[in-house]
Amino acid sequence: MSDHHTYKLIEIVGSSPNSSDEAIRNAIAEVGKSVKNLEWYEVVESRGHIVNGAVGHFQVTLKIGFRIEGS
Amino acid sequence: MSDHHTYKLIEIVGSSPNSSDEAIRNAIAEVGKSVKNLEWYEVVESRGHIVNGAVGHFQVTLKIGFRIEGS
Amino acid sequence: MSDHHTYKLIEIVGSSPNSSDEAIRNAIAEVGKSVKNLEWYEVVESRGHIVNGAVGHFQVTLKIGFRIEGS
Amino acid sequence: MSDHHTYKLIEIVGSSPNSSDEAIRNAIAEVGKSVKNLEWYEVVESRGHIVNGAVGHFQVTLKIGFRIEGS
Amino acid sequence: MSDHHTYKLIEIVGSSPNSSDEAIRNAIAEVGKSVKNLEWYEVVESRGHIVNGAVGHFQVTLKIGFRIEGS
Amino acid sequence: MSDHHTYKLIEIVGSSPNSSDEAIRNAIAEVGKSVKNLEWYEVVESRGHIVNGAVGHFQVTLKIGFRIEGS
Amino acid sequence: MSDHHTYKLIEIVGSSPNSSDEAIRNAIAEVGKSVKNLEWYEVVESRGHIVNGAVGHFQVTLKIGFRIEGS
Amino acid sequence: MSDHHTYKLIEIVGSSPNSSDEAIRNAIAEVGKSVKNLEWYEVVESRGHIVNGAVGHFQVTLKIGFRIEGS
Amino acid sequence: MSDHHTYKLIEIVGSSPNSSDEAIRNAIAEVGKSVKNLEWYEVVESRGHIVNGAVGHFQVTLKIGFRIEGS
Amino acid sequence: MSDHHTYKLIEIVGSSPNSSDEAIRNAIAEVGKSVKNLEWYEVVESRGHIVNGAVGHFQVTLKIGFRIEGS
Amino acid sequence: MSDHHTYKLIEIVGSSPNSSDEAIRNAIAEVGKSVKNLEWYEVVESRGHIVNGAVGHFQVTLKIGFRIEGS
Amino acid sequence: MSDHHTYKLIEIVGSSPNSSDEAIRNAIAEVGKSVKNLEWYEVVESRGHIVNGAVGHFQVTLKIGFRIEGS
Repeated sequence: MSDHHTYKLIEIVGSSPNSSDEAIRNAIAEVGKSVKNLEWYEVVESRGHIVNGAVGHFQVTLKIGFRIEGS
Repeated sequence: MSDHHTYKLIEIVGSSPNSSDEAIRNAIAEVGKSVKNLEWYEVVESRGHIVNGAVGHFQVTLKIGFRIEGS
Repeated sequence: MSDHHTYKLIEIVGSSPNSSDEAIRNAIAEVGKSVKNLEWYEVVESRGHIVNGAVGHFQVTLKIGFRIEGS
Repeated sequence: MSDHHTYKLIEIVGSSPNSSDEAIRNAIAEVGKSVKNLEWYEVVESRGHIVNGAVGHFQVTLKIGFRIEGS
Repeated sequence: MSDHHTYKLIEIVGSSPNSSDEAIRNAIAEVGKSVKNLEWYEVVESRGHIVNGAVGHFQVTLKIGFRIEGS
Repeated sequence: MSDHHTYKLIEIVGSSPNSSDEAIRNAIAEVGKSVKNLEWYEVVESRGHIVNGAVGHFQVTLKIGFRIEGS
Repeated sequence: MSDHHTYKLIEIVGSSPNSSDEAIRNAIAEVGKSVKNLEWYEVVESRGHIVNGAVGHFQVTLKIGFRIEGS
Repeated sequence: MSDHHTYKLIEIVGSSPNSSDEAIRNAIAEVGKSVKNLEWYEVVESRGHIVNGAVGHFQVTLKIGFRIEGS
Repeated sequence: MSDHHTYKLIEIVGSSPNSSDEAIRNAIAEVGKSVKNLEWYEVVESRGHIVNGAVGHFQVTLKIGFRIEGS
Repeated sequence: MSDHHTYKLIEIVGSSPNSSDEAIRNAIAEVGKSVKNLEWYEVVESRGHIVNGAVGHFQVTLKIGFRIEGS
Repeated sequence: MSDHHTYKLIEIVGSSPNSSDEAIRNAIAEVGKSVKNLEWYEVVESRGHIVNGAVGHFQVTLKIGFRIEGS
Repeated sequence: MSDHHTYKLIEIVGSSPNSSDEAIRNAIAEVGKSVKNLEWYEVVESRGHIVNGAVGHFQVTLKIGFRIEGS
């Protein structure tokens, strides 16, 4: 058994019409469909687009870290 | 008709006693009273002041982008 | 009486299973148990760990500023 | 006569379907319609949107500095 | 009465042949001629031009924050 | 139908012996061979190598964002 | 005797109604009341609040480094 | 034959109980199992976790660049 | 039992005449004499002083995170 | 023969009335008059001055790396 | 006559026991002894060392730009 | 005798096939051949190139500070 792990970080933009936190949750849920061993996320950027003078979607860019299978 | 648009970014601090997202919504609502064609925002800074050991107001600094009229 | 104040900034990571804003509130509440004169906070980093493909805890790193007693 | 000047910086996004430099020129031309005494610009960000797998528009964010009239 | 305020930040370069602090004071004085409710400034950049091997002018770039009237 | 999209960002270095903009176009063309739904790019770094005292290749590092299929 | 020292950095905001440098001096004087072995400072941020259209206080955030006693 | 290459950057966290450099070597060895044409790395972040008051693992985040096959 | 923890970050400069990693280990060992529950570190800065044209001491600035007792 | 090289980086501002890329080429050409072994450049800043409401000169700040002779 | 100039930036730390501005002036005076055509400076870092609980020297790191002779 | 010193910073990339620290030592040794009064270094960037799936050379970019002779 190895004495160390290796992790990969991918950069994802989640969005939500409701809240910044839901944008984070949506990004993780989408990635979780195809990637296993998700361990942590880091917020890189928080922004959004505006429709009719109000927030249309909150858009949060995350780095999501996961352990490389077998490492 | 022009083949390109021009946008201006203004920097605004919104605040709210309730949540960071509401501070964002308040900033956009205030700017929308006098500026048209708001298209997106970017969070620049997130902070707040503390009153009696609890958050008094969430304060979120945004850049808000809008298309320059006629461009 | 002095014509100026001096403040100290401490760096704290708050966490919450529920929301980013609650992580901020939890950090301030914890610090408030032992430090007086808390005046403001600044968000330094926003991240979290992921459990079973969903957010386990939101983790928000803050700088919290307080007036040095007697200054 | 004053022994100093004061300048203001505004943040503008220029765009062009042709080149990054033309995006810069377009931004300055648009601002020059309503502001006098433009003196310098600084590139803040360079990006673009992609249409059908190719650059649709180059988008360059600039700070543009101008002397405040009468200063 | 609203339970929150909204602030705008503008970016200004003040200059002075005498000192960095006077460049800050000059920038604020110039802005104060046309804007009310100035509340704080943040130094963004400190530079200057050199004439005959000595400082010609200290140039300090500030963000100046003011409360939006009526907010 | 979902009320939100999710995007992925990949980091690519394009190069060109002719110009910075062509390096951007080359990067996008290469990625477009295997990835669909490309929507935007952001320039992260601009550099190059020098051969015989002149630019050998312009090298531009981009983040390229695309919508995750089905999101 | 050890062949190395260890230092701690604390973050302090000094203020002064008169000058940026005096804000630095005030911060160091205040910290020196309770901490020994102060060795250096680094300016992290320079800002101020504005009263009646003029600088009320210069506020300078410093990191101050001191050797840990006995190290 | 093309007159230019295209490269992709991936972000990896290597770890080692022994040293920072070994964490770099471990990350590259792990990626090399599945990716060809690795050409360079850039250190993005250096950190570690602490176990019983000593370094448990050195953790180094790298960007690793490789030439896209066929470009 | 609380459903969350709170952590504090302190900034420390470790040094060593031998290596950067030993500077990290020395910093953690020194802090561990007086602080419990150390959990992780982040390298903030890496530098050194030079004596007789060679490295005298490697100096590494770390943020060290520990769980606040009772949180 | 040594098993390693040493490089020096110098910081240069090139300018051109025509394009950003030509400003880069001009900087490298000027440096190449007196320095050998130029190997790469990195763009640090891109700006320009404005004359009569149009770009007067594009000004690009570069770091230029060259191998130290004999290393 | 060329239609463009080329500038070089050098990085200098000036110091003064009296003030930050004097540290800037001292750095420029020292460089002016051996370099001609100095045109501007940019403050990169502001720090100092502390002696007996007070500022020993203000230390200001500058980039100083000068036109390359003949360009 | 002057009451202050002036220092110059130069930017150097050292390399080593063996370790990051040796890359630092190599850079300083090379500079020391032609420059006197070296006093400190700061790590600016840490990277390397990869040969056959392993580190070929560690490459560390340093700023090296030295006192200007006679200052």
